[in-house]
Formats: sequence, structure tokens, C-alpha cells
Amino acid sequence: MKLVTFEITTLLGKQQRLGAMIDGGQIVDLNAAYALHLSETQGQSAAYQSADAILPSDMIQYFERGERARKAAQASLDHLDGNPTGARSEQIVYPTDQVTLLAPFPRPASLRDFGVFKTHMDAAALITGKEISPEWFKLPNYYRGSTSPASIAGHDAPVTWPNYTEKLDFELEWGVYIGKEGKNISVEDAPNYIGGYTIYNDISARDIQFRHMTLALGPAKGKDFDNSNIMGPCLVTPDDINDPYNLRMIARVNGEVWADGNTSDMYYTFAEMISFVSQSETLCVGDFLGSGTVGKGCGWELDRWIQPGDVIELEVEGIGLLRNQIEEKAENPAAWQEKQ
Amino acid sequence: MKLVTFEITTLLGKQQRLGAMIDGGQIVDLNAAYALHLSETQGQSAAYQSADAILPSDMIQYFERGERARKAAQASLDHLDGNPTGARSEQIVYPTDQVTLLAPFPRPASLRDFGVFKTHMDAAALITGKEISPEWFKLPNYYRGSTSPASIAGHDAPVTWPNYTEKLDFELEWGVYIGKEGKNISVEDAPNYIGGYTIYNDISARDIQFRHMTLALGPAKGKDFDNSNIMGPCLVTPDDINDPYNLRMIARVNGEVWADGNTSDMYYTFAEMISFVSQSETLCVGDFLGSGTVGKGCGWELDRWIQPGDVIELEVEGIGLLRNQIEEKAENPAAWQEKQ
Repeated sequence: MKLVTFEITTLLGKQQRLGAMIDGGQIVDLNAAYALHLSETQGQSAAYQSADAILPSDMIQYFERGERARKAAQASLDHLDGNPTGARSEQIVYPTDQVTLLAPFPRPASLRDFGVFKTHMDAAALITGKEISPEWFKLPNYYRGSTSPASIAGHDAPVTWPNYTEKLDFELEWGVYIGKEGKNISVEDAPNYIGGYTIYNDISARDIQFRHMTLALGPAKGKDFDNSNIMGPCLVTPDDINDPYNLRMIARVNGEVWADGNTSDMYYTFAEMISFVSQSETLCVGDFLGSGTVGKGCGWELDRWIQPGDVIELEVEGIGLLRNQIEEKAENPAAWQEKQ
Repeated sequence: MKLVTFEITTLLGKQQRLGAMIDGGQIVDLNAAYALHLSETQGQSAAYQSADAILPSDMIQYFERGERARKAAQASLDHLDGNPTGARSEQIVYPTDQVTLLAPFPRPASLRDFGVFKTHMDAAALITGKEISPEWFKLPNYYRGSTSPASIAGHDAPVTWPNYTEKLDFELEWGVYIGKEGKNISVEDAPNYIGGYTIYNDISARDIQFRHMTLALGPAKGKDFDNSNIMGPCLVTPDDINDPYNLRMIARVNGEVWADGNTSDMYYTFAEMISFVSQSETLCVGDFLGSGTVGKGCGWELDRWIQPGDVIELEVEGIGLLRNQIEEKAENPAAWQEKQ
């Protein structure tokens, strides 16, 4: 199943809803579809209450409900007939262009980005002149990113050009969301904790990123700004991905292919990353683990630099296409002055 | 004002409440005290509804309400007379030993830990044999930590000994919580965004931390495990701290002083850190910014190592004392095996 969080504008303001992408570029409001399905056998009031309890319209709550919610979602789609209207006159099926796609989890519980593509590490070693640390081959390594609602964006959201960078970049990545709580998980059991896969554009301000990284604590403001973590267009549940480690990954800038890689190049699997981070640490529904950049999957590796107005498209086989346009540079300069 | 989040066990299960610490080691349930205050002039039902709207019993909501909530809290304390009982028979004043103190924000909106104490950097340079990067003197540097409810702990919470470390350590730090939303904040205006100060014990697994840091992306599992981020015992609002950059900081292990420093050693102020991170990035109520370790404020710098059963006390002048005991080592080994 391809799950999305989508936003619609109603007379009562903007509303976020949980949806499923179906064939023909349409999105089904799962909670509303389930209420309609239940109303065939229950009274109207009970049907809506049951739908809210069993299949709530929120991605975190959906996964927290577990197997029961998943079965309810499947039943809703199986019984969907054409383009019906709900018992309270609500819309159930939307054309994609009628909604705004948010990140599948508009506020992930946490965000870790790993760096498990060997060719990306090789390229970085070539550029920086530093050998890959031997630790890379032993432990999955990661930094933590922002989960602020302002930093998480979805398909078609504008990409902020931070007021302190001249070298903005994209990164072609993908990642998994944790679908159930767990701790001290074995590698063998870890696939059961994957709620779904999504595409991830890890927008980066390279000049300041590498200045921060001289202190070994991570990218800091190189990755931390509004709309810097772009995810979507949907999450695909594991049953709909045949072999996650053989998927083509493509990045296009203004229609031109800049990167063309494959998930087979990953040195660690998501199962290994999940097992590793879950040691003595409780993982929650909505935790996100990013793969890091596929080989040659960013402008830094290619020494080609995106500019305001450019359109970035990331495509991962079996998931879809994540498209975003770079905003104009801010006119106001940074209110921060360097200390020396 | 000294604000706390405290937990009580009731016939309906555990409940989290917002409180104020008052003289004599007591905690006032602010929402309940305000309902009592309002019931002098309003009907009982309206008084409780108004109290929930104006002074809700949740730290994030409290700060989101702004000045109105602050005034209501002050009025509740000003009108408190002895140890009254609420109109619905609820308890309003608690002895501290009758409650569990959680971290002031049991789930911070984000967690960044800086490293702004020069003597700590000097000590690290001496141990590692590497000079301090020149960037340290120009930009406040930080990593992001976990905000998972399982990783955030308060006064008296047990300290987890992760199943993958032999070198557990404490860090004597303090930090601020953001009290209102903002972006592109100037250094001059930044103090207005500080909701309060707290003590921070940044528990660290040194062996794996330094292995991760060879990859320059940060401490990773060196800081990420359950109960690794300990904050408390309260947050002190800025009006109750005379000069934040002249406060004594002390760490004791089993009663013995291991560290004795002062906040005057900070190279960047919290105002500078806030201005810096707010560039092109929206800060939220409940974002946490840690100072990093005061000089000689951890076992690594002293080459002295804590053991299971040890009691760590961190004291910051004007805030209070944060005490935690180290748990026994887990019997089960890590379910993760290194790759090579």
C-alpha cells in the first residue's frame, strides 16, 4: 500500500488527512472510506466513531493501531466502488492535483541519517583527501536531523535557500519509518519494525556544513533550516516492495539526469541499522532512518551546483517521484555575525 | 519562578502535572491552584474551564499561552493561603517527596548540545592531541540529541548502562528552553526567547562515542540510549536568575566533588546560540539548547570512571541539584554484532 498524509483546504480551514494512493493518480481518504464501509452494517454515528478508533486519520496513530488498522485500510479499499460520497457528504476520493502532499509523517518521532553507500564515501574520500575511517566498515554511522514541523516538507514544497549559504545542495536518498515500538531488536527480527519506505531529499548548505564538521559533531546548520528535510511523495509498505536492495535511484535537475544509482550499493541494510540503534534504546512509531546519499547523488560529488528556480526530481523505483523547486535567495542577510 | 513537570499516581493511573516549586520544598499544582483562585469569582464549572484554557497543566502549552499564563501562575501563587483543598477535593500543594519530578519538558521539541566552554575544549585538545578547529571560535557548534520520551529523564531517574559500553560517563552542563516561537532572531532580542534555565546531565558512552566521531557526523550511539538526557530538577525563569554568566557549577560522585566550575567560562552566550540557530530556521517552544560540558566537568577529562551504583549530583547555583544513580549493567549482551 502507498500511504500519504495530505492536506485539503475546507471552509473550516486546512485539514490533514491520512490517504492511500491508488491507480489512476487518485488518493483515498482512508478514515472516511472506512466510515462509509462500516455504515453498511452499523448506524451512522457508530460507524464514524468506530472509524476514528480503528483507522484514525493520522500516520502515527495509524501505525500505533497495528494490524487492525492495516486490515481496516485494506477492507476500505477493497469495498470502494467508484467515487462515492460519504454519509455526511464528505469527499472520499481526491484527484492528486486537488490536494497538497505533506511528508508521510509530517512530524517524524526522530530523524537519523546514515551514510551507508560505499561509492558516496569513496567520492567524499577523493574530494577531501581523507581515507574512510575503519569504523565505517564496523558500525552504521549517523547524525540526527531536525524533526521540527517547519523543517519537514513534502512533494512540491519550496526549498528554502538559507540566508547564510552560497552552496546549496540536494541529496538523493531514501529511508524507512519505524512502524512499531521496540528495543534490543535482532537483525533477523528488524524487518518487522519497518512501517514503510520513502524518498528523502536531504537539502544541505555545503559551505557551513564542512566548517561545522571540522569539530566532528556533525553538520549542524549545514542541514538545519526550514524545509531542509523533504520526504515523500508517499510511504510504501514493505509488502509492496519486492526486493528493497535492488531499486534504481535517479536524480534530475531541470529534467537532466545528474545521478543514476541503485540501492544494491548499500553496505548496511535497514535491518542492520535498526538493530544497531535499538540497542539499549527504545524505538518509536515514526522514527525515520535515512540511507545517506547514493553514489554521485548530490551536486558536491559532481561539482555542479543548483541555483534558485531549479527543479529537483528524485525517483526511487517502486516508490515514486519527489519533486521540489528551489526558492529565490532571501533578501535579508543573516542577523547573526561571526564572532571573529 | 521555578517550574516543574511532576508525576503523581492516582486511582486513575499516573498523571503528569505542571507545578511551581515554592519555599519549604513544596510543589504547587498551578492549574488546580488557578481553578481555586478563579472559583472565588466564577462558578465552579467555569473556573475549571478557564483554568484549563489559560493555565493548562502541560509545560509546552503553558509557554505557548505566553504572558497570560505567566500572570495566572503568579496570581495563583500570590493568592495561595496555606494548604487548601480544591473545589473538587483535589490536592493543590505537594511535599516534593510525594511526587516524581520529570524533566521540565518531558519531551523537548528538539535537543541541541553545544560545546561552548573553552576549558573543556582545551582539555579535549590535550587528550586527543588535536588542536581546536579555528571554526570553534567563529560559529557556535552543536550536535542534535534524542528527544524521545524514553531518552529524556528527570531528577532521581535511574541512569541506564547501555549494553554496548564499558566507559559510561556523566557531563556537567546546563541549558535553556525556548519559550516562544521565532526565526532570524538578533542577538539583542534573543534573551526574550529564553523560557528558562535547567541543569543537564548528558550521559555518554565514551568508547563508542569516539569511534563514531572519527566519521565527523557526531556522537551517535555514544549519546543515544534510554535515559541518556537528564534534565531538571526544575526550570528557572530568567527573571529569577540575576546574572546567568556567573553561576557556580559543581559535580559530585558519591558525595565527592569531581568538578567545580562557573558559567562565566562560556565563550558563547545562550543569546548568541539562539540567534545563530534561528537563521532561516523556525525555533519552537520547548526547543532545548545545552551549553556543553563545563571545564573538567566529566570523567573523561579527569580519567576517572563512574561505576554501577554510583550517585551523580550536579548543582548549578540558582537552579538546584540534579541527582541520579547509575543502574547495574544489563545482563543481556547487545543483539548487534559488529560487521568486521
